[in-house]
Amino acid sequence: MDNNRPLILITNDDGITAPGLRFLIGVMNKLGNVVVVAPEGPQSGMGHAITINSTLHCDPIKIDDGPQKEYSCSGTPVDCVKLAVNVILDRKPDLCVSGINHGSNSSINVIYSGTMSAAVEGSMEGIPSIGFSLLDYSWEANFKPSAKFIERIASSVLENGLPKGVCLNVNIPKVEESHQINGIKICRQADANWEEEFDERKDPRGRTYYWLTGRFVNRDKGEDTDEYALSMNYISLVPVSYDVTAYSALKTLNRWNINEEAP
Amino acid sequence: MDNNRPLILITNDDGITAPGLRFLIGVMNKLGNVVVVAPEGPQSGMGHAITINSTLHCDPIKIDDGPQKEYSCSGTPVDCVKLAVNVILDRKPDLCVSGINHGSNSSINVIYSGTMSAAVEGSMEGIPSIGFSLLDYSWEANFKPSAKFIERIASSVLENGLPKGVCLNVNIPKVEESHQINGIKICRQADANWEEEFDERKDPRGRTYYWLTGRFVNRDKGEDTDEYALSMNYISLVPVSYDVTAYSALKTLNRWNINEEAP
Repeated sequence: MDNNRPLILITNDDGITAPGLRFLIGVMNKLGNVVVVAPEGPQSGMGHAITINSTLHCDPIKIDDGPQKEYSCSGTPVDCVKLAVNVILDRKPDLCVSGINHGSNSSINVIYSGTMSAAVEGSMEGIPSIGFSLLDYSWEANFKPSAKFIERIASSVLENGLPKGVCLNVNIPKVEESHQINGIKICRQADANWEEEFDERKDPRGRTYYWLTGRFVNRDKGEDTDEYALSMNYISLVPVSYDVTAYSALKTLNRWNINEEAP
Repeated sequence: MDNNRPLILITNDDGITAPGLRFLIGVMNKLGNVVVVAPEGPQSGMGHAITINSTLHCDPIKIDDGPQKEYSCSGTPVDCVKLAVNVILDRKPDLCVSGINHGSNSSINVIYSGTMSAAVEGSMEGIPSIGFSLLDYSWEANFKPSAKFIERIASSVLENGLPKGVCLNVNIPKVEESHQINGIKICRQADANWEEEFDERKDPRGRTYYWLTGRFVNRDKGEDTDEYALSMNYISLVPVSYDVTAYSALKTLNRWNINEEAP
């Protein structure tokens, strides 16, 4: 192993056998020495969850013949990053990549996404971090057209670093061939949302239960958003901050005189 | 039930029997008609997790003699808010409050917190929302000194509303008596972090497992932060945004010329 090559940590939220992760390993093996620490099973929708009320397992595993080292973890994507940095790796990685997620993490999905929470956790640890997602939920999704773009974005981050406290949320349109991707656009998060519908059912004993379903609705007409870029077959790249202070609201709140007793 | 009173949704992440939730119900019963939809058990550290790979239960429950209606839910705090808005309530609530959490959600803890994720979810649904947390992890924590401040903050939000896309993260110092709280300060999130330490053990069969532990480290010396306010025995109030775009990083990234092919 060439110790002068960058050390690259890979995780995801679809689980260690997911095709999107396997594809990302292939791309990253070209750029550096890869260590994979990924959930043993699906962890979609886990957001920034961590495991504090139960124990964690994390064991070496061999899945294919690539040069990467791999570990399978019983926890969430964020647990994987914490375990990698604090237990498995002997130095801080030069890059943390998460994905490729099967399905979009654009717009408000960034908040629910285990893929992106792993990248956010990486940035909290001071590691330049990127989450990659493809707009195709299928297990048989075609990741190939994205390869050269993923390599270019990861190389740029390895070369330039990222501003403190910032990671990247990269979403990739679903296309057949690489040339159908028009390029990469730096964007803001679209102000879109999910309109939930709960599917109400009865179990065999007559008790009511629910499945969460919903419909993604984008009312943000801005042409500087990730949703717009993706709709034009661009890859969207949104810088994401773990400082969630709504700075623009500070002035409004200060006008409330909240320290005055009610009359 | 007086239908002219505000409709107030309450949830938390410590579970429906937690003393912090029971105390918050008492305060909110003074301000409006209260509906509680809370997790049946502890959901700490769940971040913005949602339940998409399994089913959800949500059933009416009676815990004390108060006027509130209550529902116990098998899911996460965010699931509770979604179920409340889409299944249980017949109109959008005027206020969503989460907590009182047993333990701090100041600074970076906002990212991991189920309490705050419920408030963020409320704001995503267009409901003025507040998360309350007390800097005392104990189940026997003394919530009484905070009552008049919680009532004042909730009344202000009912009266003024909140800017679109913003909820409030309220943390309360641990004191014996109300007069020891010096007031309420509008703050930004301190740039502090956890330094993890994993406690490594062997199970009875010899397999290695881990407990996540850690140490909170605040290197942010700003006097406008939540950590500073709390250290001076003020209640900290941080406006929190679900738009996590790092706007300040857009210019830096645009300078990368990421669409140029490598030579």
